Amino acid sequence: SPLVVDNPEALKAAVAKASPGDIILLKDKEWNNSGLRLQGNGTAGKPILIMPQTPGGVTFTGQSFVQMGGSYLVFKDFHFRNGYSPKREVISFRINNEVLANHCRVTGIVIENYSQPERFKSDSWITLYGKHNRIDHSTFVNKLNSGPLIIAELDDERSQQNEHSIDSNYFKGRQRFGSNGGETIRIGVSRYSLTASRTNIVRNFFERCNGEVEIVSIKSGENNVSFNTFLECEGGLVLRHGSGNVVEGNFFLGNNKPFTGGVRVINPNQKVVNNVFSDLQGVNFRAALAVLNGVPNSLINRYYQVKDALIEHNTFINSASILFGAGKDAERTLAPENVSFKHNLILSSGTEVYTNANTGNGILFSDNGLEKSFKGEVPQGFKVMKTSSIKVNGFSLPYHPDYGADVKKLPLIKKENTGASWYHPEPEKTIRKAMSFQVRSDQSQTLPALLKQAIAGDTIVLSEAANYKISAELLVSKPLIIMAAPGLKSRPVLIGTSAKSMDAFISIENGGDLLVKGIAFKGTYESFPAVDAGIRSTDRPMNRPYRLEINNCEFYDYNESSNAGFKASKSTLADSLVVLNSIFHHMSGAGIDLSSEKEDKGMYNAEYTVIKNCTFSNLLGAAINIYRGGNDESTLGPFVTIDHCTFNEVENREQGTVVRLIGAQQAAVTNSNFSYSGQGGRSVLFQEYRWDNILVDYCNFY
Amino acid sequence: SPLVVDNPEALKAAVAKASPGDIILLKDKEWNNSGLRLQGNGTAGKPILIMPQTPGGVTFTGQSFVQMGGSYLVFKDFHFRNGYSPKREVISFRINNEVLANHCRVTGIVIENYSQPERFKSDSWITLYGKHNRIDHSTFVNKLNSGPLIIAELDDERSQQNEHSIDSNYFKGRQRFGSNGGETIRIGVSRYSLTASRTNIVRNFFERCNGEVEIVSIKSGENNVSFNTFLECEGGLVLRHGSGNVVEGNFFLGNNKPFTGGVRVINPNQKVVNNVFSDLQGVNFRAALAVLNGVPNSLINRYYQVKDALIEHNTFINSASILFGAGKDAERTLAPENVSFKHNLILSSGTEVYTNANTGNGILFSDNGLEKSFKGEVPQGFKVMKTSSIKVNGFSLPYHPDYGADVKKLPLIKKENTGASWYHPEPEKTIRKAMSFQVRSDQSQTLPALLKQAIAGDTIVLSEAANYKISAELLVSKPLIIMAAPGLKSRPVLIGTSAKSMDAFISIENGGDLLVKGIAFKGTYESFPAVDAGIRSTDRPMNRPYRLEINNCEFYDYNESSNAGFKASKSTLADSLVVLNSIFHHMSGAGIDLSSEKEDKGMYNAEYTVIKNCTFSNLLGAAINIYRGGNDESTLGPFVTIDHCTFNEVENREQGTVVRLIGAQQAAVTNSNFSYSGQGGRSVLFQEYRWDNILVDYCNFY
Ligand SMILES: [Ca+2]
Ligand SMILES: [Ca+2]
Repeated sequence: SPLVVDNPEALKAAVAKASPGDIILLKDKEWNNSGLRLQGNGTAGKPILIMPQTPGGVTFTGQSFVQMGGSYLVFKDFHFRNGYSPKREVISFRINNEVLANHCRVTGIVIENYSQPERFKSDSWITLYGKHNRIDHSTFVNKLNSGPLIIAELDDERSQQNEHSIDSNYFKGRQRFGSNGGETIRIGVSRYSLTASRTNIVRNFFERCNGEVEIVSIKSGENNVSFNTFLECEGGLVLRHGSGNVVEGNFFLGNNKPFTGGVRVINPNQKVVNNVFSDLQGVNFRAALAVLNGVPNSLINRYYQVKDALIEHNTFINSASILFGAGKDAERTLAPENVSFKHNLILSSGTEVYTNANTGNGILFSDNGLEKSFKGEVPQGFKVMKTSSIKVNGFSLPYHPDYGADVKKLPLIKKENTGASWYHPEPEKTIRKAMSFQVRSDQSQTLPALLKQAIAGDTIVLSEAANYKISAELLVSKPLIIMAAPGLKSRPVLIGTSAKSMDAFISIENGGDLLVKGIAFKGTYESFPAVDAGIRSTDRPMNRPYRLEINNCEFYDYNESSNAGFKASKSTLADSLVVLNSIFHHMSGAGIDLSSEKEDKGMYNAEYTVIKNCTFSNLLGAAINIYRGGNDESTLGPFVTIDHCTFNEVENREQGTVVRLIGAQQAAVTNSNFSYSGQGGRSVLFQEYRWDNILVDYCNFY
Repeated sequence: SPLVVDNPEALKAAVAKASPGDIILLKDKEWNNSGLRLQGNGTAGKPILIMPQTPGGVTFTGQSFVQMGGSYLVFKDFHFRNGYSPKREVISFRINNEVLANHCRVTGIVIENYSQPERFKSDSWITLYGKHNRIDHSTFVNKLNSGPLIIAELDDERSQQNEHSIDSNYFKGRQRFGSNGGETIRIGVSRYSLTASRTNIVRNFFERCNGEVEIVSIKSGENNVSFNTFLECEGGLVLRHGSGNVVEGNFFLGNNKPFTGGVRVINPNQKVVNNVFSDLQGVNFRAALAVLNGVPNSLINRYYQVKDALIEHNTFINSASILFGAGKDAERTLAPENVSFKHNLILSSGTEVYTNANTGNGILFSDNGLEKSFKGEVPQGFKVMKTSSIKVNGFSLPYHPDYGADVKKLPLIKKENTGASWYHPEPEKTIRKAMSFQVRSDQSQTLPALLKQAIAGDTIVLSEAANYKISAELLVSKPLIIMAAPGLKSRPVLIGTSAKSMDAFISIENGGDLLVKGIAFKGTYESFPAVDAGIRSTDRPMNRPYRLEINNCEFYDYNESSNAGFKASKSTLADSLVVLNSIFHHMSGAGIDLSSEKEDKGMYNAEYTVIKNCTFSNLLGAAINIYRGGNDESTLGPFVTIDHCTFNEVENREQGTVVRLIGAQQAAVTNSNFSYSGQGGRSVLFQEYRWDNILVDYCNFY
């Protein structure tokens, strides 16, 4: 009977001693903080099998991680949850730089809630080294922190031309990361991209992998990406570096969700054939098909010219954009050359089939089909035709025997075909119903404990129009509401009475969301040390985006330039910050400060910022300061809406700016008044890129 | 006989038990890491005296600090050196917020080499709380880190109207700090500036206190600053906040050194009388006299309007600027009102007596004297006269019985009258003469140890035109030279062969200066991890500005956008960075990166940057990136000179900049060529303030 081990040391010894064909069972239980080093050698016919007593019966938690080395090891049916790796990866296909894994397999595993607590601490969940390794039938749930979920490294010859397989996995969501580093898979890296990787990414199901513009980032040559389904992914499969890659038989299904993308082509000798692109709303880098311009004399990590590409027999259904010469700008000036665009089938209800940013004839259009519903002028290389409709796996698709993808033969991978079959997550239980707690001003001191004990959805009601003495920051680590009792004559006022200066009255912690209504936040009070902000996001580790709504609040008497009404801390991302009907006055810093990501690497502090019907008056700093620096092209935000706001006596210093929106990619400032503000500089400052979407309208500037 | 104690606990007990008139002697020795808490009560006639067995016989080192509380304690004749405080101050006139010191005195002490290792970690050397305390006859040598050397805090009534005295001290140098926070004395803070402090700063000698624009920063009311000498200080006495202050009988002696300043007047009811301003070269905020414009509806930490000032009986000798309406801009729009400028005496060889940025008659000029050497038109309120010359303390001064300072009666304080009388520092001894070490390429591994053992002035010579394998960063912590042997056919090449990625080949550490000549720095080599920079300043704590000269070097093959040829780390300041005759090519980051101070608080990475005869080619990032953000007005730098440089194929990305000089206050870009560079953005980018001094000339842009 198979050996059963119950601790990492015993396991390590067992694997080291194992003979080909041995099965080593891990005792079913929680394995907390377990670092596994598995080094052994099976054979092709007789691998060494390492698995729990029952599938999913072993749960790795805390700071558990796995390193595999040797050959023909199979690591199977394990569950990683509620922790994160202390290493650069959760599972590594090497023990160290000397001992790599070859012909090894990770299968049937589940990794969930296993992200680094600090969102910019980078790691991967699995990194491939060596050759002929496989990751299959596994389920990966929403990695939150920086770094691709799966990486294949090609550092030296031992890991090149590797023939790895990443197949039949279920990538179950990855939310917007708000920075580069949100990839789901990366194969290779620019420095070694001129070598062949030959990794196979096949039959996987990618669901809402929205981390960034690259869902799968190919940075090496001769890979094969085939028969995968990309469902509602806000990004695409990107042939970023390396040549001779094949993209075949994939389904990109956008369901008309915004920003959903397809394939992006860069470098020579790429092949994109027999794919289906359906209802994709992405444009530019997220177009259903984006063929990029190159950079003359390009550095290896920039953009090589597209040459000799085959883009054939693909079907494009109701997608927003097919774009040649994507990214064309002062640097990316080299148009694609010798791109064969042939036998594709396009269904479009619009008036343009494709866009080409270049002139010249680098794209060779010939014999493509255009479904007869098309309303515009038929371009050269296309002819109008009628298609039939067939069902593939319950999904209706247009079909023509000579044009577009051969959908009769394509396996449309569904999520049921992928992932760990033993895994059936149950919904979490609730302890009680959310409820409401009334707090009088003489009970101020109970607030920290009350917030700690509260459960998601609870409401804290400040019941008096009086001063509430706050002597420790109020920490919000779950969705909560803090509000004034309705009908009070004036707002309850939070005042700081700690012996030490406080960072804020309220801090949004990891997992926290907050609606705050009808409260005043006064920064200085008597001789007590100042409070530096009304509300902030935490400076402790945070990997979950938060939501904050501020309604009918007042922020005043902040005397230092680093103070702010609301201040986002570094390495925190708001999913949304909504500020309504609020007043900011007599402050030396900013009213709303979302500028803590100063590294100029494309990070930012809030995906959506909405500020409506607010007044900013007598501010030394900017009223609103949003910053995203650098040239990164991975993300969609920040999205900024400023409407019906009033700015009076705000930031009149030399070169000062009242509303600073550096790097906002989508912004509208409307129906607002600026008076005696920005006299030494600007009322509104953008640093606009050509693809940004900026609107300033219906504003008065005095 | 007096009690002798030899440890902090015994001392604490002795002071607690002491009766008025007691003397407690500390045993002469080094007191390392000694935290002293002195709480006791003497009387006015019989203070408790705490001192070493012999003056200067006790040296406090390491993390020693002192806290005093109670009344009538005298802390005398101690020496603090070679350490820094673990608290917010070295000597505090309180034990904690409950126990303050009153009628206490610190006298005859010396503090030197006692700065926080991290330059932006802020502290003070002495902080006054309570009332009627005195700091006198002490010597303070070159505080390096952030924070005023002496602070008087006025947090609440117990410390207001305090009648403190800071007198007869010798402030022996404070080098340029390169940021706000380089004050020598600060009295009060804006939040409490409307209360009276009544601190006396008298008969002190300030020598080359160049930390920032404020040498003495008055931020409270009714202080008295009298009979001090300011010798060659690059800044001034600033009445920043608070009203009713008196500045009387001081000597500001510039010796025609650049940037030397006098008095800056802000707020109502200030009095500047009977002072001598001599040979001061400062302008604007560093003018001999600068009377500022105010801000309408000013926040308490901004600029209140000057009203009802008396500026009388002062003598101005050959000084560059007397300026009314200083700081006038879009924000500071309120001209001074009712300023009496009367009976002053001015010696000027120029053609303008003063400058007034405003119109109107807020300045009431009446009956001032103008020495007859004046060549220009005599303005209203002045008359020309002849003066006699008298000697005061060996110093020749002009004299007129009715005009200017009454120099016959003024005590001109000399350094000999101030400071700790027992203190006579000896020059440091040297171990041996500096010498030269030859290193062959097969001896590369000895370099780290060689650098460690080297003494100031040593030279390391790389003797072969070959690859030098570097597997650990070379640390330079004293002045050294690293150079190629003369006459080699090509440059010795540093290559990284560490198993881990390295931050740089060479790191300048605290205390280090470096001249590097004729060396190549190659960022990537075979499959070894990349080296992120050629040379960097350390990311470990650093409080001393360093000098670096790079001559005839080459930097290439850096593949990441965060890489750079030279990279300044955060919280480091180069006194000067000089790059001559060098080549930067094939890099994804910046050539020279001085942009790590991203906080927009006026910090920057190098005081003087000189780049001449250099070539930058095929760079993805900026060739030169210098950044100083924010509105701070405390500092002089960065000074930037770029001459005879060539930029080819550099930073063509959207909104990219080839030479980024944000916040450079003094800059010249001359005789340089830009080709196929900055195509998506700019060749040279400034964010210029009206007082900046910027020149771009004789450049070609293709
Ligand atoms: Ca990416
Ligand atoms: Ca200052």
